Amino acid sequence: MALRTPEEYRKSLRDGRRIYMLGEKVADVTAHPLLKVAVETVAQDFALTESNDPEIRNLFVFPDNETGEPISRFFKTPENTADLEKRSEMIARSIRLTGGLPFGKDVGTDCLNAVMVVADQMGNEEYKERAKNYLRFIRKNDSAMCGAVTDAKGDRSKPPSKQAHPDYYLHVVDKQKDGIVVKGCKMHITSGPVANEIIVTPTRQMREDEGDYAVSFAIPANAEGITMICRPGRGEQTPYEFPSGAPVRTLSEAMVVFDNVFVPWERVFMCGEWQFSMLLAYTFASFHRFTAISYKIPIVELIAGCGVAMAESNGLEKAGHIRGKLAQMAAYVETLKALTRAAARDPIMYGGIAMPNPLVANMAKLHFASGYHNFIQLVQDVSGGIITTFPTYEDWNNPDTRGFMEHYLGGSDKFTTEERLRLIQQTHRWTASAEHAHMEVTTVHAEGSMEAQKMMILLEAPLSEYANLAKQMAGISG
Amino acid sequence: MALRTPEEYRKSLRDGRRIYMLGEKVADVTAHPLLKVAVETVAQDFALTESNDPEIRNLFVFPDNETGEPISRFFKTPENTADLEKRSEMIARSIRLTGGLPFGKDVGTDCLNAVMVVADQMGNEEYKERAKNYLRFIRKNDSAMCGAVTDAKGDRSKPPSKQAHPDYYLHVVDKQKDGIVVKGCKMHITSGPVANEIIVTPTRQMREDEGDYAVSFAIPANAEGITMICRPGRGEQTPYEFPSGAPVRTLSEAMVVFDNVFVPWERVFMCGEWQFSMLLAYTFASFHRFTAISYKIPIVELIAGCGVAMAESNGLEKAGHIRGKLAQMAAYVETLKALTRAAARDPIMYGGIAMPNPLVANMAKLHFASGYHNFIQLVQDVSGGIITTFPTYEDWNNPDTRGFMEHYLGGSDKFTTEERLRLIQQTHRWTASAEHAHMEVTTVHAEGSMEAQKMMILLEAPLSEYANLAKQMAGISG
Amino acid sequence: MALRTPEEYRKSLRDGRRIYMLGEKVADVTAHPLLKVAVETVAQDFALTESNDPEIRNLFVFPDNETGEPISRFFKTPENTADLEKRSEMIARSIRLTGGLPFGKDVGTDCLNAVMVVADQMGNEEYKERAKNYLRFIRKNDSAMCGAVTDAKGDRSKPPSKQAHPDYYLHVVDKQKDGIVVKGCKMHITSGPVANEIIVTPTRQMREDEGDYAVSFAIPANAEGITMICRPGRGEQTPYEFPSGAPVRTLSEAMVVFDNVFVPWERVFMCGEWQFSMLLAYTFASFHRFTAISYKIPIVELIAGCGVAMAESNGLEKAGHIRGKLAQMAAYVETLKALTRAAARDPIMYGGIAMPNPLVANMAKLHFASGYHNFIQLVQDVSGGIITTFPTYEDWNNPDTRGFMEHYLGGSDKFTTEERLRLIQQTHRWTASAEHAHMEVTTVHAEGSMEAQKMMILLEAPLSEYANLAKQMAGISG
Amino acid sequence: MALRTPEEYRKSLRDGRRIYMLGEKVADVTAHPLLKVAVETVAQDFALTESNDPEIRNLFVFPDNETGEPISRFFKTPENTADLEKRSEMIARSIRLTGGLPFGKDVGTDCLNAVMVVADQMGNEEYKERAKNYLRFIRKNDSAMCGAVTDAKGDRSKPPSKQAHPDYYLHVVDKQKDGIVVKGCKMHITSGPVANEIIVTPTRQMREDEGDYAVSFAIPANAEGITMICRPGRGEQTPYEFPSGAPVRTLSEAMVVFDNVFVPWERVFMCGEWQFSMLLAYTFASFHRFTAISYKIPIVELIAGCGVAMAESNGLEKAGHIRGKLAQMAAYVETLKALTRAAARDPIMYGGIAMPNPLVANMAKLHFASGYHNFIQLVQDVSGGIITTFPTYEDWNNPDTRGFMEHYLGGSDKFTTEERLRLIQQTHRWTASAEHAHMEVTTVHAEGSMEAQKMMILLEAPLSEYANLAKQMAGISG
Repeated sequence: MALRTPEEYRKSLRDGRRIYMLGEKVADVTAHPLLKVAVETVAQDFALTESNDPEIRNLFVFPDNETGEPISRFFKTPENTADLEKRSEMIARSIRLTGGLPFGKDVGTDCLNAVMVVADQMGNEEYKERAKNYLRFIRKNDSAMCGAVTDAKGDRSKPPSKQAHPDYYLHVVDKQKDGIVVKGCKMHITSGPVANEIIVTPTRQMREDEGDYAVSFAIPANAEGITMICRPGRGEQTPYEFPSGAPVRTLSEAMVVFDNVFVPWERVFMCGEWQFSMLLAYTFASFHRFTAISYKIPIVELIAGCGVAMAESNGLEKAGHIRGKLAQMAAYVETLKALTRAAARDPIMYGGIAMPNPLVANMAKLHFASGYHNFIQLVQDVSGGIITTFPTYEDWNNPDTRGFMEHYLGGSDKFTTEERLRLIQQTHRWTASAEHAHMEVTTVHAEGSMEAQKMMILLEAPLSEYANLAKQMAGISG
Repeated sequence: MALRTPEEYRKSLRDGRRIYMLGEKVADVTAHPLLKVAVETVAQDFALTESNDPEIRNLFVFPDNETGEPISRFFKTPENTADLEKRSEMIARSIRLTGGLPFGKDVGTDCLNAVMVVADQMGNEEYKERAKNYLRFIRKNDSAMCGAVTDAKGDRSKPPSKQAHPDYYLHVVDKQKDGIVVKGCKMHITSGPVANEIIVTPTRQMREDEGDYAVSFAIPANAEGITMICRPGRGEQTPYEFPSGAPVRTLSEAMVVFDNVFVPWERVFMCGEWQFSMLLAYTFASFHRFTAISYKIPIVELIAGCGVAMAESNGLEKAGHIRGKLAQMAAYVETLKALTRAAARDPIMYGGIAMPNPLVANMAKLHFASGYHNFIQLVQDVSGGIITTFPTYEDWNNPDTRGFMEHYLGGSDKFTTEERLRLIQQTHRWTASAEHAHMEVTTVHAEGSMEAQKMMILLEAPLSEYANLAKQMAGISG
Repeated sequence: MALRTPEEYRKSLRDGRRIYMLGEKVADVTAHPLLKVAVETVAQDFALTESNDPEIRNLFVFPDNETGEPISRFFKTPENTADLEKRSEMIARSIRLTGGLPFGKDVGTDCLNAVMVVADQMGNEEYKERAKNYLRFIRKNDSAMCGAVTDAKGDRSKPPSKQAHPDYYLHVVDKQKDGIVVKGCKMHITSGPVANEIIVTPTRQMREDEGDYAVSFAIPANAEGITMICRPGRGEQTPYEFPSGAPVRTLSEAMVVFDNVFVPWERVFMCGEWQFSMLLAYTFASFHRFTAISYKIPIVELIAGCGVAMAESNGLEKAGHIRGKLAQMAAYVETLKALTRAAARDPIMYGGIAMPNPLVANMAKLHFASGYHNFIQLVQDVSGGIITTFPTYEDWNNPDTRGFMEHYLGGSDKFTTEERLRLIQQTHRWTASAEHAHMEVTTVHAEGSMEAQKMMILLEAPLSEYANLAKQMAGISG
Repeated sequence: MALRTPEEYRKSLRDGRRIYMLGEKVADVTAHPLLKVAVETVAQDFALTESNDPEIRNLFVFPDNETGEPISRFFKTPENTADLEKRSEMIARSIRLTGGLPFGKDVGTDCLNAVMVVADQMGNEEYKERAKNYLRFIRKNDSAMCGAVTDAKGDRSKPPSKQAHPDYYLHVVDKQKDGIVVKGCKMHITSGPVANEIIVTPTRQMREDEGDYAVSFAIPANAEGITMICRPGRGEQTPYEFPSGAPVRTLSEAMVVFDNVFVPWERVFMCGEWQFSMLLAYTFASFHRFTAISYKIPIVELIAGCGVAMAESNGLEKAGHIRGKLAQMAAYVETLKALTRAAARDPIMYGGIAMPNPLVANMAKLHFASGYHNFIQLVQDVSGGIITTFPTYEDWNNPDTRGFMEHYLGGSDKFTTEERLRLIQQTHRWTASAEHAHMEVTTVHAEGSMEAQKMMILLEAPLSEYANLAKQMAGISG
């Protein structure tokens, strides 16, 4: 099969999976008014790989080195800077081309790449072989995947083994001849409801007495014992929104409950090796923060663009204080871009696999996350209060009110009033809506909190080399 | 009448006013599914003045100095620090008592107080008498008022007289024997759709050739020629939200179109005195920023409280980095409170009227607005990603999923899982919802942008005294 | 005696005290080329109390409530807001009048006020009486005092009792019939070398097994066993500096070694009451941070003034980005002033003694310290690189070079070139010199580090009230 | 000659140059107590090129492509990323190897590279040839060079032609058969007093009527009519400083007066082409900001190292809030490094010359400059107040006081007290001394102010591409 069509993808989701939304069991995710938006968003990934535009196709498709068949480039294990750069470009382009992130293979392959690195570092040939076979499997099936990492965690001041019950972190409850049985719950799982496969890794370092929590595996999303509970997100374009240039794209998130789920041994990639749990968590984090900064680029470009265009539509793009704010916005966006490129250019090699530079990738993520709220403040500031008080498209379509809107809501003569209102609608969407609020929180928490990034920066930055320079200047030995 | 009941207030809104929402003319604002939330919010103001609790009644009611009748304290023209402190406390308390801001008399009296100051500064006895009479009128009718200040503005790089059409700023189009006729549109008018009276003042300094734009007046909200176009805001509690401890309170905003509206002379407070337009705009700003910082206090206390309680419910309130963030949150909130008190304590006296200290009030507003996004980031950070991904109350009420939620969404044992989820719901509301997004933008733009505050700080701060100190130390004459 | 003259003060310092500077024992601090600058600075305190200007005299002098004699207002134990405001004003005025801070009685009385509060809280009549007698003593002798609080501390991760030796924190080594013997070293003691009296309090909370470290007392600066080691600071005006409008004023700091120093019981204010060590440290901190914010005000006004005047001398005071920076500078300065006033207005009363509001005083100090570097950056930015590269006054006085300087170093025609250079000299002094660098570090560390302020903010801010608001909105009980 | 020895360099400076310092004419810069420190600093450049260590030699020396002779790598016109990386590494290494920046060829070649780019862009073969010949000349003579760019500027609100006199910007006063005569003054010229050659370029865009100000040329430092007035900087190690591991290195700055200086035509690279003045200024800025960020790297590493080592010596490197600050310090340093690498990797090619990426170089400089004061605050914070109050080395050497210092100034047992004091001395030097204060101001102003960087970011960042993304999403045409 190798490359699937959007329709094949849709069909594959009608597989008996157990999904809940707003208190009801979802019969068919592809038909659910909210979830189908997420389905169509991920379906774009399959649309892109069947593009007729050779440049796009070359970016999103590559020939399987074993079979020669065309497969999704997400399934290419990165071997060098060029592979990382292509992956980053593919992620960013997919947003620019479709208006949203078809998050169907990103996180899952971040997990799988980390699994491969750790299997190699363990020197465990069995795990290496299983991971390789699993890669063959998803290549062959062109699987949509999600990664399930964050546990429920309970009381955050306590380790897994000291919680009120043992299930706050996912763990092995039974080892059988053919496989293991796991129990637990993974939180905030992006694209879980619309994935074919779930790949699970530990969320943190485990200790010697927490071997059962050091577990990694892959499983189909419709496996018995799996229940997903979703939160409603952005739905389709409404009649009161001014039209936009592209359909609404959005992601779905879910808490994914594993209620005594059986996993066959051939899909188990870690089981008890607690000493490697932190390496797996950190390696995943490096791959995934690189994914994160790659997909954030077109988003912050778009948001900055709302600010630039709103300043123009207000006639203020030459005002001194506005220019100062535009410069700050640009510096925020372009620093993110430069750091993302730098993370690809200085990878760490692990047995033939190129991991994005963890120090640079974490700094880039920290730059993004710590500066985002200030960036948004700048865009809101240059745009004006109108982005949260403008009348709706239905008022525009009502002859009683359209004239007033036409007369009073104009700005610079570079834009018609309707163009300005459409721009206001976009700026509202990205900086003043429920979607924006959701994005603000995920900026802080998705792909690891800022504290997680600081922890990795402390580990990766050459602090002792700095200290040695100081000691050398002080004429003292280290 | 003097003090009205909530029901009298509701009834007064069924007055033929011309309101549009989502493309439809609203027949009765008190019955409209969205607008009635705003109606009920403002109705709280009338409930508070009929409170049986003497402490509350003493705060919200005071005896009219002319008639001896009990009237709303909002109608007390401030004469000293104590009056300003009471006004500030009344505003803050109304939120703490009702769960929202009954914004029925705040902005309107800010406008009227400014009108009185400027009439006095002009030395115009006629205007002074009209303002006094209008005060008597609103006292007697216990009117809900809105203030209408911000114009449509068109191309912001151009003054009123250079715009594509003359109506981007509200102006006098005719002067008649009995009154004036005005045309224009005021934007972002909070509580416009649920007010009895609209009081209008200029938004900026006008120049000599812009005398027609230097106009201030009061008018009933249902006057002929007035059309309001609303944007849908927060509605009532939904079935998918975890219950809260108080009904939803919210404000409504509207663009208010004045389409050749007649205003009788006895309601005109400025007409052509362009030299005083800036004084009126600035005096209003000082009163209104004081109102703003007063009502922001309980809101940021509540939001900080979400952060504190979420940290507890996560079991993290003792963690070093969390404590550092809680200290920053507290410093943000308490600095706002200390500056608000300081603004009341050093008022500027204008002919018997106490205006909140403009330098301190503007700094307090700038502190609030410039630090808000960072404050929110701290609260989101200590709360966790769950505030934007948690399942809904309907899932909690579904037996299929409740057990999983109960089992996996617990935290510290100081809270039951349901309590934690209710807390998450509140934290979502204030930091991760459409309401939050709206509040973020209004933080930047409502009551004047940060640039407006900087401009007033430059005017009010003793920069030349600083320079004189430097020159004196340098041994040079000023 | 009650009020001394500057000359009496100078004479009192020739008392055999044991002071070291640059490797040499100082024979007479009043004659030492560096230390005499500090002597003359503190001597200003005595000049101010003998001022003929009634307004100044009324500010700096007050009648002893017991003797009726005129004494320094520093010796007035604050009983209310007015006392605190006067104290604050006196501190700020002393800098404006003399060009520097005559730090002769500020810290010492901060210590003594804290000692009095704690004696009262302990309910220890003996200590109360001793403190009262000591107050009589310093009033009568018009003593210059320093406060000695910060210990050497050794390894900061360890408490006093776990250090490599017992002396890293000052402690009682012997209790005798007539008094105690103490050993230790107090660090960074401002005005130690030019004080008559030293008053010692603990730097932190002590634990049950650290009773010997819970010690507070007063002692003359020339007592046997005391050695002070100074660091060279700013000396007198040099020939290469452009003249200034006032003599150089500066403070001296020293490490003060207590090498088995005997203290008579009548000067001991705490000895073993470890439970009250934290209260003493915190009460001192509240008084002292209020002193700190009071004396910082005229300094930051002066520095801001350098920026304002430099912007003028560069012809740039109207440029948009410069105005934005001036507004930020003004907001920094005026927020400090407003918070300082607020700390005086809401004091905490302890048995008749008014302690500045600890929450507000700590926020003010944190505002000052956390924003100072940014404030300096703004001033440096608006001033230009010339403040660190300008030729010297000696070049100005050399006919070979003066013409070039006159021709090329002019700016706006509001200033002569010489005036501009004098202004540059002042701006250099306050933002680009060794003095500035010293001040930057003391901003961070003097009167407690920012972590100390955050700790007190966490203790004093109503975090649980915030949380209760959130819980109430969530409909859950505390 | 091609490569000179340090002694040949020193000798070349005894050439009759006209230098003033502290009001006196300097007879011999190599013998002057202050200037010789700068001489010896630059002499390190010549020591490095004669290194016997092949790795160092390969870095600092390369074979002249025309003569095959070994020459300084600074004279290699960059043709690609590798050349830029080598140049950056050479600059950073020179500090790490010598303890300071031997600023002998950096700025001068930044100017010359910009001259070459602009000659090419003008399509002016004569200028191209002259620049090439000048490159041959400095290669052959191994010249120490300075770049002279910043003018005196007078009233900054006025262009060159509107100043009080015509000389506030350097300009051509006469064009003769053999050359031109120029008049003016260049400010803050680093290494001017110790350079062999001065290369001059315009500091800003010139207008059509300012052709005489659009002038660029090279001239020996001892040319007739040139006078330099220096400001005293850091001198040699003093007896009161604890010893350091390397001699003091420092730079000298001067105002350089051109008093009717004759420049032969073969050294003139621009004369009247005002249309290209901005291109020259901006191209220089791109090269020079790359130099700046390259040399800042080892400096901020060293300063961060002081913080890391001080935290260790205080026993606090594991404390939560200290770790948070170390992470921020590391992120600051490593972001600078990553952006510097990125600026080299995406150069802009101009006729065979690789210019560092102007957007990235400017963002890196802005990152450095805007964050420096905060970075210093962090280092001061983790180091403690001792860095500005510690007794001197002379006290350490005095037996009366050494014992006290030994006993009380210890910290963590990882360091002896003397080691801790040496470390404190270094930390003082880099964060609490006159040198630090100077560096703080040069951070803001050297290599262009932050406003200059923002201006270039606005020019270089794809703002209109951002806006197009927004317009595309809004469904409107650009």
